[in-house]
Amino acid sequence: MQPTIGVDVGGTKIAGGVVDAEGKILHRHQVPTDANDPDAIVASIVDVTKECVAAVGDAVAVGVGAAALVDSDEGVVLWAPNLAYKDLPLRALLSKQVSLPVIVDNDANVAAVAEAVYGAGRGAKHQVMVTVGTGIGSGLVLDGHLYRGRHGLGGELGHMILVPGGDLCACGNHGCWEAVASGRAIGRLARQRIEGGAGADVLAAAGGDIEAITGELVGEAAVSGSPFARDVVAEIGRLLGIGLANIVNIFDPELIVVGGGAAAGTGELLLAPAREAMKAHIVGEAYRTAVRVVPAALGNDAGVVGAAVLARELAPA
Amino acid sequence: MQPTIGVDVGGTKIAGGVVDAEGKILHRHQVPTDANDPDAIVASIVDVTKECVAAVGDAVAVGVGAAALVDSDEGVVLWAPNLAYKDLPLRALLSKQVSLPVIVDNDANVAAVAEAVYGAGRGAKHQVMVTVGTGIGSGLVLDGHLYRGRHGLGGELGHMILVPGGDLCACGNHGCWEAVASGRAIGRLARQRIEGGAGADVLAAAGGDIEAITGELVGEAAVSGSPFARDVVAEIGRLLGIGLANIVNIFDPELIVVGGGAAAGTGELLLAPAREAMKAHIVGEAYRTAVRVVPAALGNDAGVVGAAVLARELAPA
Repeated sequence: MQPTIGVDVGGTKIAGGVVDAEGKILHRHQVPTDANDPDAIVASIVDVTKECVAAVGDAVAVGVGAAALVDSDEGVVLWAPNLAYKDLPLRALLSKQVSLPVIVDNDANVAAVAEAVYGAGRGAKHQVMVTVGTGIGSGLVLDGHLYRGRHGLGGELGHMILVPGGDLCACGNHGCWEAVASGRAIGRLARQRIEGGAGADVLAAAGGDIEAITGELVGEAAVSGSPFARDVVAEIGRLLGIGLANIVNIFDPELIVVGGGAAAGTGELLLAPAREAMKAHIVGEAYRTAVRVVPAALGNDAGVVGAAVLARELAPA
Repeated sequence: MQPTIGVDVGGTKIAGGVVDAEGKILHRHQVPTDANDPDAIVASIVDVTKECVAAVGDAVAVGVGAAALVDSDEGVVLWAPNLAYKDLPLRALLSKQVSLPVIVDNDANVAAVAEAVYGAGRGAKHQVMVTVGTGIGSGLVLDGHLYRGRHGLGGELGHMILVPGGDLCACGNHGCWEAVASGRAIGRLARQRIEGGAGADVLAAAGGDIEAITGELVGEAAVSGSPFARDVVAEIGRLLGIGLANIVNIFDPELIVVGGGAAAGTGELLLAPAREAMKAHIVGEAYRTAVRVVPAALGNDAGVVGAAVLARELAPA
């Protein structure tokens, strides 16, 4: 099998890589994302892809994973809460520029594919990947295949309503799982409790500026041993776990792979209470003996590798 | 294709039918369910099946849909909140008694198959069936196939947690969709409001006995025009709709088929507010142009027909 190119389009960087038949990244190239300028984003995607094409002469197809709602059937990036693009026919634009077939999908979908093929999900027929970062993304691998749904918009588990009327989400709704159980939710809960007079250590770590308290900072304080920060992370972990229970009740998977920056940064401080809350909210829990919740294995490479794996379906046989 | 037998095991009756290649029920037989006696339930299932076998000589396989958690790979009825059976190897027991191959599945799964093949879901590749009765059942038809998950326990959408810490569910958890948006929830909300002094008309319809106010009675009052009852039904409809939005965000289906007694008994009084709440809670709503929420078409026959359709996979080619 000839190599394919994977491009991971995120809010801070656009990363490309050439990936071989064993999932190894042969060559890498990345540039920062100009999140407010859709033309600049497209130009950067084209540049990164061309650089990869030039670096390894025999790449046969391109996959793009974008942090956005993506209609993968049509290859159109529809909308993203954190990036300026809207209704962008990326597949057509990029394919014309690089003269290779292109597939475009959601970043969480490509990460799920990468983990299923080369990461923590190897060998599991039914698995759900959940990416806990600033928000919550997810990808569904059901009966061994990426599930996309009717418009290619399936697997938006981060926007399942978990607390009707709850905290405002970046999508505009209230009480989405992402709004109450993501890295952003960790920061928000810490700020609320600090306004109530707790968490002097975390406030000091933020230089006394309550607005500077992010989920990342709270996660670091938790890892360093702050009881206040650990309590905040555990509380969000429980809400994360209720969403995981929903995943189990809905999909009956054998595996849930948890990735993303907030999960990687807090590890078991987040995952242990999540697993406990999950178990308490599963119907027929005693019968679902095979289900496991495991950390993602591929880290930041999941986007590039997964996009390149998806591109293989476009490669000449 | 030779006929197959479908058996629908519910809380009040066990209904059997012989179903032909066009989905027509050629013969029917049913008996009441003795919900508290597992041996009697099995004996009734055997009797109903034998009666159907005898009535139409050439039936080649038997499907059973049971109101329970069912491990369909193993043919074992695991557990049900409203029926006495537990860890019952129904496939083995029944197959031995009737000398035909048997498949056992969850009642909501078989109803979903029936609607997908012969009912409201004909032609839709991705569809979710939701049965709103005393509780909420569901079945998933994804990429044209019934999705069961790792242990055959997928599609328990009724037990997705929608209101953490909310009303007690029959499963023992709190705040399941079924606990807050089913026929039982309609009755509970009406009783709460009547205790607060409202709904004199509905209380009178129940002979002044607040404990006699069921979801069914409230539904009938709503259909008869009671503004109090209509308001209760609409409120539960909105919670139903938030769960439907979760289904859309998760599966991106083209169709949600809503069946069950509570839905049939209230019609658009429940479904119209449900659709409205659903639309308000979908991420990327403008892009999901194909999604529709429609009433089930097969009514009480869905269980028998769907179980018989599942049994076809056991028929000799």
